[in-house]
Amino acid sequence: MLLTEPGGPGPRGYSLPLSPSGESAMVSPPPWHFSGDVIMVEYRTDPDAAAAFLPPGVDPGPDPGAAAAVFAHWHWRSETGQEAGDPARSQFSEFLILLGCTAEGRPMARCPYAWVDSAVPMARGWIQGMPKQFGAVHLTHPKAVGRTGPHLVEGGVFHGVASQYGSRIARASVTLSGRVAEPPALHAVPLVHTRHFPAWVPPEEPLSQLVVSAVDDVRFGEIWSGQASLDFAGDLQGDLAALRPVEVGGGFVFSYSETLRHGRALSGEAGRG
Amino acid sequence: MLLTEPGGPGPRGYSLPLSPSGESAMVSPPPWHFSGDVIMVEYRTDPDAAAAFLPPGVDPGPDPGAAAAVFAHWHWRSETGQEAGDPARSQFSEFLILLGCTAEGRPMARCPYAWVDSAVPMARGWIQGMPKQFGAVHLTHPKAVGRTGPHLVEGGVFHGVASQYGSRIARASVTLSGRVAEPPALHAVPLVHTRHFPAWVPPEEPLSQLVVSAVDDVRFGEIWSGQASLDFAGDLQGDLAALRPVEVGGGFVFSYSETLRHGRALSGEAGRG
Amino acid sequence: MLLTEPGGPGPRGYSLPLSPSGESAMVSPPPWHFSGDVIMVEYRTDPDAAAAFLPPGVDPGPDPGAAAAVFAHWHWRSETGQEAGDPARSQFSEFLILLGCTAEGRPMARCPYAWVDSAVPMARGWIQGMPKQFGAVHLTHPKAVGRTGPHLVEGGVFHGVASQYGSRIARASVTLSGRVAEPPALHAVPLVHTRHFPAWVPPEEPLSQLVVSAVDDVRFGEIWSGQASLDFAGDLQGDLAALRPVEVGGGFVFSYSETLRHGRALSGEAGRG
Amino acid sequence: MLLTEPGGPGPRGYSLPLSPSGESAMVSPPPWHFSGDVIMVEYRTDPDAAAAFLPPGVDPGPDPGAAAAVFAHWHWRSETGQEAGDPARSQFSEFLILLGCTAEGRPMARCPYAWVDSAVPMARGWIQGMPKQFGAVHLTHPKAVGRTGPHLVEGGVFHGVASQYGSRIARASVTLSGRVAEPPALHAVPLVHTRHFPAWVPPEEPLSQLVVSAVDDVRFGEIWSGQASLDFAGDLQGDLAALRPVEVGGGFVFSYSETLRHGRALSGEAGRG
Repeated sequence: MLLTEPGGPGPRGYSLPLSPSGESAMVSPPPWHFSGDVIMVEYRTDPDAAAAFLPPGVDPGPDPGAAAAVFAHWHWRSETGQEAGDPARSQFSEFLILLGCTAEGRPMARCPYAWVDSAVPMARGWIQGMPKQFGAVHLTHPKAVGRTGPHLVEGGVFHGVASQYGSRIARASVTLSGRVAEPPALHAVPLVHTRHFPAWVPPEEPLSQLVVSAVDDVRFGEIWSGQASLDFAGDLQGDLAALRPVEVGGGFVFSYSETLRHGRALSGEAGRG
Repeated sequence: MLLTEPGGPGPRGYSLPLSPSGESAMVSPPPWHFSGDVIMVEYRTDPDAAAAFLPPGVDPGPDPGAAAAVFAHWHWRSETGQEAGDPARSQFSEFLILLGCTAEGRPMARCPYAWVDSAVPMARGWIQGMPKQFGAVHLTHPKAVGRTGPHLVEGGVFHGVASQYGSRIARASVTLSGRVAEPPALHAVPLVHTRHFPAWVPPEEPLSQLVVSAVDDVRFGEIWSGQASLDFAGDLQGDLAALRPVEVGGGFVFSYSETLRHGRALSGEAGRG
Repeated sequence: MLLTEPGGPGPRGYSLPLSPSGESAMVSPPPWHFSGDVIMVEYRTDPDAAAAFLPPGVDPGPDPGAAAAVFAHWHWRSETGQEAGDPARSQFSEFLILLGCTAEGRPMARCPYAWVDSAVPMARGWIQGMPKQFGAVHLTHPKAVGRTGPHLVEGGVFHGVASQYGSRIARASVTLSGRVAEPPALHAVPLVHTRHFPAWVPPEEPLSQLVVSAVDDVRFGEIWSGQASLDFAGDLQGDLAALRPVEVGGGFVFSYSETLRHGRALSGEAGRG
Repeated sequence: MLLTEPGGPGPRGYSLPLSPSGESAMVSPPPWHFSGDVIMVEYRTDPDAAAAFLPPGVDPGPDPGAAAAVFAHWHWRSETGQEAGDPARSQFSEFLILLGCTAEGRPMARCPYAWVDSAVPMARGWIQGMPKQFGAVHLTHPKAVGRTGPHLVEGGVFHGVASQYGSRIARASVTLSGRVAEPPALHAVPLVHTRHFPAWVPPEEPLSQLVVSAVDDVRFGEIWSGQASLDFAGDLQGDLAALRPVEVGGGFVFSYSETLRHGRALSGEAGRG
């Protein structure tokens, strides 16, 4: 299916747009370095609804219905650093849902929905199999001083909101009660994605591939936990609505960083298809 | 490379996000119907610069350096009509550059760069091989009455502007002088795209495929022509800057519609790779 | 209260920012010329709720509870024409609510809420007493050709949506059934506004002044009417929610233009205060 | 000029929109509490250009041409706290220019231009006399961990960019070299503003009033300084362009908070007009 060779004649690039030097590519090639601030709320959803989002080869695992809502603000940089000088390019906010699952015989997480407020991270998501859509995502940034904050201290309150097409999707809050040693479970496991690129030339089929992201340089900063609220909008419809909380658990506010290098095929999947 | 079967178990959809019913797909499956208002300026660019954007199998043709800048406002609908009730979903604005070329022995156009102000059309562009990026695109809409207009009459002035990351890319204007029978040449030929989906799982190569879009139900409304201006921003850098105008030609303002059904491999390309 | 004289030394301008030449003013001085496309739905709201939005000197009149929801896309120009070349400046979309009322012994309309998607029109609204807030407003533009349209013909469907802070406010649709000779009543009467500029220097009171807008060069293009829907979002709260429809009337789609020149004090109000 | 009494009949509110309960006001009444992160670059501009922006009663002072470019990200809260739960309402980014000056016989600063990315802070600016326009403003947020950061340590690099209508206004960077005890001079003096509300009802004159903001609860967090860059866009035109840097000084990155309570007339100005 590959019709142009890297290094061959013609325009080139890691992604569209291809151009003579390759520099016009919307997405710069991995690895990508991320530094983030995260507001995360653990919750439980209907186990049958969650299971219906898992592809063959991925199972609900020992704790069906375990889920989390994650709001994050990211600063990212590629190896070339070409985005580094422009905060409009190097930062974005994200809201995503995680479902607990088991694959390759160990705990993983599946992301059924994600929204970002910037188009390059959206496209980069599709490359990895993260189902990122474009939305409006806002979360409170910690402040060091002042009467309004919010501050990373006991009693500090952090909020996240997400919308798409001018309609609310979800909102969450966490009121800090103290520091903890361990990150929330669903933020400490690999993510298993379906890389899916739609069909266009009949009778070709879509590219569809179960992959696990290869991540290193993982670091957590201070991890705060506390009481949380999480609400999906009342007028949500369809498949997404089935993942609404039936019980809200603990909340977390923490710093996190990683380097995302590439994907690998889910073990036992390479020969299928 | 196909690991999940359409109709098989697990979440589904024409695009990500996959979901139990398939309704969550960001992009609804083709065909897609488009009705648009277009402001188009013909121009000439450096022939060598233009040639460097053409992939093997596509040649500059008999008129090297022929180019056009196209601003368009689109209303679109898929067969399901699921977007029809929300103007925030069913409309978008676009700015793109076209280069004249020859493929399969006949005149075609190549789109080296395009920007849209909505994420679903951006993703849909990637599916077809249109190198759509996210930008701010504004063009004046014709008005029926009033002292400011603009009106589709002799002397009416139409403007388009495009920006990305808060920096201007290009601006154009057309002052109408009269109606013409024929659309501008580069809007009347097929588009030849490179469908390109980046590599993620080493050592796999990117999907890269020369395709032509299959379009029908093409209609033009009134076609107006007139004197045009076209300016690329002074601080543009890199490969895009090489396509700036060396001479500005005529301008056109017209209505246009089409139905985009699927792609087909460029003739003579199917066996390569 | 006037401490700097127009024409005196120091920076100047019709509005902030003041600058040496006066050209930096965010709002250019009136008159302002407007050409627009309007989607309007008549409805009835609770008469007591509507009356509570009327200031002294303005009465509910003979048809209490008469109201309308108006979506409009505007092209505007000031006398200097300084915005004319930039569609990002010369166009905006608006959603507003109108309440029928009587003042100076004749029918007028009161606008309790309005939203625009551009900051200069918002500021210009405050100057006149239009309570414009910033929101996301989208309405379908008529198209001349194509399978999706929408077209200004019998059966054509036009939509409007409005949101603020990522939450839906209202949505409306009109399905055209035919042309009519008369515009909807609430679009054919003067608007009575409260020009209100908040207090800042204690113990000064806010500027607050009942005014009527002085408009001329009014023109209507084709006026279409048809069946309408209008929904306020289910989770709307507070004073705005009290104005929700109890009955939805007819819908209208039309072109309209006017020149807005200045305001005048409501008759009988000049000596008060 | 005051025609409606606070507490009297009719709709009410600190600002438009007025409503029965007063809760619909776009701007909630002061005091307003602010917690912010600031990237600030000192620079020198043409002294004559700067002087032309000062109103009568305000002088260039002992250091004519002293100026600063300030990028800030703010979290704010009013006494009611009604915005606190929505990060889309409680946060905004700002870019402004400050000019050194003298008024009431002591050092102050004058803000000739400011841009914010949120409409309520823009309107609140007008109430105080801050000439805030609507723009796209982005600045890098400090991160606690990771390979990209940026981190509040020696060598950390912070960036700010500002645009309006899709055109760049300015960009700045600061590379941290160490902590300092004192904030930059122009961030430690009062601001003298012209509260200016345009005329609308002839022959009334605009409200125009020289005021000083009354601020308390001022706190600085860590103050870092370092080498800075500052560029105004090459195609800037008009009065703003006259304030471009002729020399770039030091850069600062710091946390800051204040409570803004009200304004007071500039001493010696109350009886004028």
